[in-house]
Amino acid sequence: MTETSAAPPARIPGTEPHPDSALDGVDAWWRAANYLSAGQIYLRDNPLLRRPLEKSDVKARLLGHWGTTPGLNFIYAHLNRLICEQKRNVLFITGPGHGGPANVANAWLEGTYSEIYSHVGRDEEGLRTLFRQFSYPGGIPSHAAPETPGSIHEGGELGYSLAHAYGAVFDNPDLVAATVIGDGEAETGPLAASWHSNSFLDPAVDGAVLPILHLNGYKIANPTILSRMPEEQLLKLLEGYGYRPYVVTVEDPAAVRQAHEDFAAVLETCLAEITAIQEPYRTGEKTAMAPDVPGADAVEQHAPRWPMIVFRSPKGWTGPAVVDGLQVEGTWRAHQVPLSEIHDNPEHLAQLQEWLQSYRPEDLFGADGRLVEEVARLAPEGDLRMSATPYANGGRLLQDLHLPDYADHAVKIDHPGSERVSPMFNLGGYLREVIRKNPSNFRIFGPDETASNRLQAVYDVTDKAWQQRIDELDEHLARSGRVAEVLSEHLCEGWLEGYLLTGRHGVFNCYEAFVHIVDSMFNQHAKWLKVSRGLSWRQPVASLNYLLSSHVWQQDHNGFSHQDPGFIDHVVNKKAEVIRVYLPPDANTLLAVAGHILDSRDRVNVVVSGKQPAPVWLDPEQALLHVERGVGIWDFAGSEGAGPGARTEPDVVMACAGDVPTLETVAAAALLKEQLPELKIRVVNVVDLMALQDPKEHPNGLPDRDFDTLFTTGKPVIFAYHGYPWLIHRLTYRRTNHDNLHVRGYKEEGTTTTPFDMAMLNQIDRFQLAIDVLDRVASLRSTQASFRQYLQDERARARQYTRDEGQDPPYITGWNLQEAEQDTPG
Amino acid sequence: MTETSAAPPARIPGTEPHPDSALDGVDAWWRAANYLSAGQIYLRDNPLLRRPLEKSDVKARLLGHWGTTPGLNFIYAHLNRLICEQKRNVLFITGPGHGGPANVANAWLEGTYSEIYSHVGRDEEGLRTLFRQFSYPGGIPSHAAPETPGSIHEGGELGYSLAHAYGAVFDNPDLVAATVIGDGEAETGPLAASWHSNSFLDPAVDGAVLPILHLNGYKIANPTILSRMPEEQLLKLLEGYGYRPYVVTVEDPAAVRQAHEDFAAVLETCLAEITAIQEPYRTGEKTAMAPDVPGADAVEQHAPRWPMIVFRSPKGWTGPAVVDGLQVEGTWRAHQVPLSEIHDNPEHLAQLQEWLQSYRPEDLFGADGRLVEEVARLAPEGDLRMSATPYANGGRLLQDLHLPDYADHAVKIDHPGSERVSPMFNLGGYLREVIRKNPSNFRIFGPDETASNRLQAVYDVTDKAWQQRIDELDEHLARSGRVAEVLSEHLCEGWLEGYLLTGRHGVFNCYEAFVHIVDSMFNQHAKWLKVSRGLSWRQPVASLNYLLSSHVWQQDHNGFSHQDPGFIDHVVNKKAEVIRVYLPPDANTLLAVAGHILDSRDRVNVVVSGKQPAPVWLDPEQALLHVERGVGIWDFAGSEGAGPGARTEPDVVMACAGDVPTLETVAAAALLKEQLPELKIRVVNVVDLMALQDPKEHPNGLPDRDFDTLFTTGKPVIFAYHGYPWLIHRLTYRRTNHDNLHVRGYKEEGTTTTPFDMAMLNQIDRFQLAIDVLDRVASLRSTQASFRQYLQDERARARQYTRDEGQDPPYITGWNLQEAEQDTPG
Repeated sequence: MTETSAAPPARIPGTEPHPDSALDGVDAWWRAANYLSAGQIYLRDNPLLRRPLEKSDVKARLLGHWGTTPGLNFIYAHLNRLICEQKRNVLFITGPGHGGPANVANAWLEGTYSEIYSHVGRDEEGLRTLFRQFSYPGGIPSHAAPETPGSIHEGGELGYSLAHAYGAVFDNPDLVAATVIGDGEAETGPLAASWHSNSFLDPAVDGAVLPILHLNGYKIANPTILSRMPEEQLLKLLEGYGYRPYVVTVEDPAAVRQAHEDFAAVLETCLAEITAIQEPYRTGEKTAMAPDVPGADAVEQHAPRWPMIVFRSPKGWTGPAVVDGLQVEGTWRAHQVPLSEIHDNPEHLAQLQEWLQSYRPEDLFGADGRLVEEVARLAPEGDLRMSATPYANGGRLLQDLHLPDYADHAVKIDHPGSERVSPMFNLGGYLREVIRKNPSNFRIFGPDETASNRLQAVYDVTDKAWQQRIDELDEHLARSGRVAEVLSEHLCEGWLEGYLLTGRHGVFNCYEAFVHIVDSMFNQHAKWLKVSRGLSWRQPVASLNYLLSSHVWQQDHNGFSHQDPGFIDHVVNKKAEVIRVYLPPDANTLLAVAGHILDSRDRVNVVVSGKQPAPVWLDPEQALLHVERGVGIWDFAGSEGAGPGARTEPDVVMACAGDVPTLETVAAAALLKEQLPELKIRVVNVVDLMALQDPKEHPNGLPDRDFDTLFTTGKPVIFAYHGYPWLIHRLTYRRTNHDNLHVRGYKEEGTTTTPFDMAMLNQIDRFQLAIDVLDRVASLRSTQASFRQYLQDERARARQYTRDEGQDPPYITGWNLQEAEQDTPG
Repeated sequence: MTETSAAPPARIPGTEPHPDSALDGVDAWWRAANYLSAGQIYLRDNPLLRRPLEKSDVKARLLGHWGTTPGLNFIYAHLNRLICEQKRNVLFITGPGHGGPANVANAWLEGTYSEIYSHVGRDEEGLRTLFRQFSYPGGIPSHAAPETPGSIHEGGELGYSLAHAYGAVFDNPDLVAATVIGDGEAETGPLAASWHSNSFLDPAVDGAVLPILHLNGYKIANPTILSRMPEEQLLKLLEGYGYRPYVVTVEDPAAVRQAHEDFAAVLETCLAEITAIQEPYRTGEKTAMAPDVPGADAVEQHAPRWPMIVFRSPKGWTGPAVVDGLQVEGTWRAHQVPLSEIHDNPEHLAQLQEWLQSYRPEDLFGADGRLVEEVARLAPEGDLRMSATPYANGGRLLQDLHLPDYADHAVKIDHPGSERVSPMFNLGGYLREVIRKNPSNFRIFGPDETASNRLQAVYDVTDKAWQQRIDELDEHLARSGRVAEVLSEHLCEGWLEGYLLTGRHGVFNCYEAFVHIVDSMFNQHAKWLKVSRGLSWRQPVASLNYLLSSHVWQQDHNGFSHQDPGFIDHVVNKKAEVIRVYLPPDANTLLAVAGHILDSRDRVNVVVSGKQPAPVWLDPEQALLHVERGVGIWDFAGSEGAGPGARTEPDVVMACAGDVPTLETVAAAALLKEQLPELKIRVVNVVDLMALQDPKEHPNGLPDRDFDTLFTTGKPVIFAYHGYPWLIHRLTYRRTNHDNLHVRGYKEEGTTTTPFDMAMLNQIDRFQLAIDVLDRVASLRSTQASFRQYLQDERARARQYTRDEGQDPPYITGWNLQEAEQDTPG
């Protein structure tokens, strides 16, 4: 492979001009797609202009984005030509998602739209419906969306197209993701980071991404950085990102033939380069590279230089050039609807007619409104149609995971707490087996925290994928690997989403506090799933699994900035059927949860677990049952006694959710039991947080009767919760006993300190919980003053010890975690 | 200015070698800082190694990050030399915030630390305290943090250093922000986008940022992309970002003298280049550039090519090279504590002693532990010390804003609803005057949405800052401008934070749904403010103001992906004293809120307002009073009657918060009043959401007595709320009448449809609210079946009309917004 020159030629030297016929076909397809796009934005009737356009043919509300659309159609048409020729699997990712009309138009032209939505036929009546439904009440969204055939990418928020593309091609060696990046999107941080995904793409086992930076110069109301920087600088930037950029510039909107020739040549070259890069890795000619040694071939030590396209085309190309005396085509004024006063300004109506007519619909559509055969046959066949590719309907390709045997990894115990195990470390062993059994459709993504989160057992069977130089001192780096580590939560999330939506499985492990970085991406994915679940043609995909560790209570390395358990609050705002939150209290329940979530579909599962060695409370069978039920009474921790008839009504319920709150609750109950053997304490542990919610609000919600049985209808409930306490109130405010609920949780008090001090700072420690019981149980309030004082003294003594010695008091059971901390980077 | 070659020399040709004495001083400072850094991580006693190190001298928990620290100290020492020479104002921004020990060490060396924290003196006892407090219970965090003198940047999360730096130098012409970017941070999206900030920096009125990309090769457990890509590619990348990179590479850790010489030369060159770039813009030799015309000088049409440094130094430089037979210095193993088994492994203890001794503390500190004079005098003087610069304690520089007269902008009305005004458009006029009156310390940041959010009146007096090519068709672009528009919420937020923390004022306007992109940045800023408020030496800074528009109820352009009112839920998790949420119901209340928030300090204010023309309910005086009180009864909308004695107890309370819910509530009340004149309806509007909360939880919370007076203690309350309904329950669960509260809000039902259809989809429309009243007031439940049916029919009729006609029924008062929609890009 040769080095890229500073400015590669737009035309590829030595290529033959294309036969007129092929490019004529591309042009006809383009015109048809443009016509259908404009029609969607404007028309509610008269879809083929059989008669002069009237105001009543035009929608009352004109909503849609014309600006980016013709460029998308242009690219799509050219891709189709090569797909037909080369029978390639291509996934089309529309970064400028506002260009939804383009995706819909092309899907209709390819016939996919009518196959999926039978009420939108391939005739004039179908066209009327197609046009009318767009951005219309009860119709379809204006963006590329789940409703859009061939899309895995909602275009509303911008920033994620390239990360989705890379996720899609991981482990899909035959796939090319043609990814259009709008120049607005290119200003976002996530997109800027996504270019570097090429450092993680293995040419041997992964497919290819063909980024098409579509510069039409403007975002909503402003020029864009990449479109206005000097060309030489732009090329350096893209080469600096590791690509070989080919530029196609459309200076003159009227020079359409030249544009077709240029783009066709460049696209052919890029696809040929992709093949040329991949082949030697697949034939074994190039293999996984040895550590960097002086004198070795520089090219092979680094990621290949993949081709990409810079496509400069006028915004709103082929639309009205000038409106009301102002330049529109090629400017930001073409962003939405170039003609907006159709209903009040006869000139706009006339211009619209002229514009639509310029595509010569009479040549493109027959008498019945069907696409003429000369154009229709330009569509690829069957699943090769980008609108019909199974890669964009991943459930069609999804294979169930082969899951390891739970029993092989569960921890056996003599009695509750008899073993101390790091839940995350133990889970690592399970995930190692998941990888072993599923070598090509399961991946782990993490922002450089997989080992810090204690999942390092996976490196027994796999490595971290890495295409840059590998040095001798590096560990577990290789060209191929099931783990990807990049210090960008955005990339981890985007890759995983792309991977899942194309029919595979995975996990995103992250520090709890910093998963907020992808709040917004989670939003979009949850919305995508909510809509997808309502579309029968979209097959279910594997759930998006967040494995959050290094959580708020175990941040003694890092302090206040690393303490935020609010992702759960964020998640529970989304549609109940889509989201699940698990707070496994120990290693066995985490393991049971893991099996459960890896087997689930079309959901977002959030799992929060500690990484430090901690007591195992439940034996393997109990843990399975506990996860299945979501919530349960822990007899061993309480003092009601077990067996039939033992439970009547406790004096107090001590509830807990989360590993640290559970430990403190069990410890508080032990303190109380010792001092007050007559007190009937019930300890309730919640592993499935959604069990707390009203069953009318969430499918996992406990029926009121069961909730009342567990939490009583009138006894005090002291609830120690992992996160912000008010979430528990929010989830339970309709429950009978809500007024007696007293919740402890994280209240934004923290710094770099010891774990037990953190618990004390937020008043969720065992002493405080025991005091809470004394304060809430009426009969104890006046009688236990000296015990209360003892607890307060113990609390003060612990704080003082911590300050004097710089560590937790060793006599505080379960907190002497020094050993474990030391060997965990983070 | 000359073009950058592909690989600029590390040594600047023609520079003289530095006199030994100067670099000897730099080296001594560096050794002292390194000693103090290692001391902080390890020692609790014996701070000057007066006796052989014993286990008991070493902290029980070893928590801190050594890896990045010596490089930070190195850079700091070199900057100090030039600050002394050139008397420059330099702000040091520590991207690798884990390197907190470096900032603290240098602040102590400069004397600032002891000036601020008098219990940490400049003697041996002070050193003991300094060491012991680090990452210690009751001590200081391990990161650069609010507690750290000279810092405006918490280093926990990574990604924001460069954006903070640019924000800091906007309108600070004399400031240089020396910004160290760790190579881990450089992988993040926000950082990747931040390089482009140079497209927004005006050399005439802004200061300069000197990025120092500190490549030590590794993040936690992995190499980094930028450190491992080919050098040529890295330089292209940085040149592609528009910089002129100078590289200093430390190959051999022992070649310290060479490193000093190289770095000194490069740093001098960079500072000289900064001056050379700025001068012609400030003398008027170069001025604001004309639109791009062929033949004009290419350099002047674009952003200047600012210098930057790539500093490759070994991770954990000067620390233990090999530990237990494994290479540590220069590898990821140096990330945290290179020697971790001090308490169990005598060899580690010995190695620690040797390591600390290698800095020759006996040469650096006198008998009393004071820094020897030869080193102490190398510190810059007074406020020039980076640890003491007022730019890092912005409240010291803060000037109150000159606010325009509220009355000049408030809308006069004849009666409630007599005028229809876009609240945001009206606010634009007010902000225009804010800009006029405060030409150099107030800015507006937005992701290309300032006009879309209808604030375009500001362009009457200012422009959008832009340093790339300006074309003839562009509007309101100029080299200087008070508005910055970049399609990156991360940059908007980061710039504004940097601008505020250095003592200025500003607003971030954003689409409501997409502000979630900066959830995590908000978290960090709110935490910063929480801690800062507890530090008496940190002067209050202006509040961070979010102006959210294009909100969930007005997304007919964009649909489901743009609908998310959950930022409020996210915000209210943070400390109550720091956060405020305002939901002004009309133009006048928005204006009153604006005056209020622009005058506030040390807070985060979230304001959500619509941009479409909407009824003005309150006259100017009422609006002021309403905002002051936060919540109030709207007599005109209810049917209790006004005046003393009129209010006894209503039959129902109709509460509302947010502009659209308020409109629907007023309309519902009108429907009910007409049909049921005997029904006593009370309409309560909430503008300050925090008024709902328990006063024990939030300072703005209404006392229970007032709350009970407003919301009654037993009557049904129908609450129409802007966002997710459960937030209202969460805020009010302790209130007397909570069980009678019935909340309507956004429940994730939406698509691209009309505004009134959106309200109906989420059951917050006037008909539904009226039905809710009939269902909740016992006396109406059985008697009003036919009225209920009428309301249901009206609802169905409206839905049908919308589907048939593609717009809201014109007979629905307040919703015929077509005209306004058309001219608003978005």
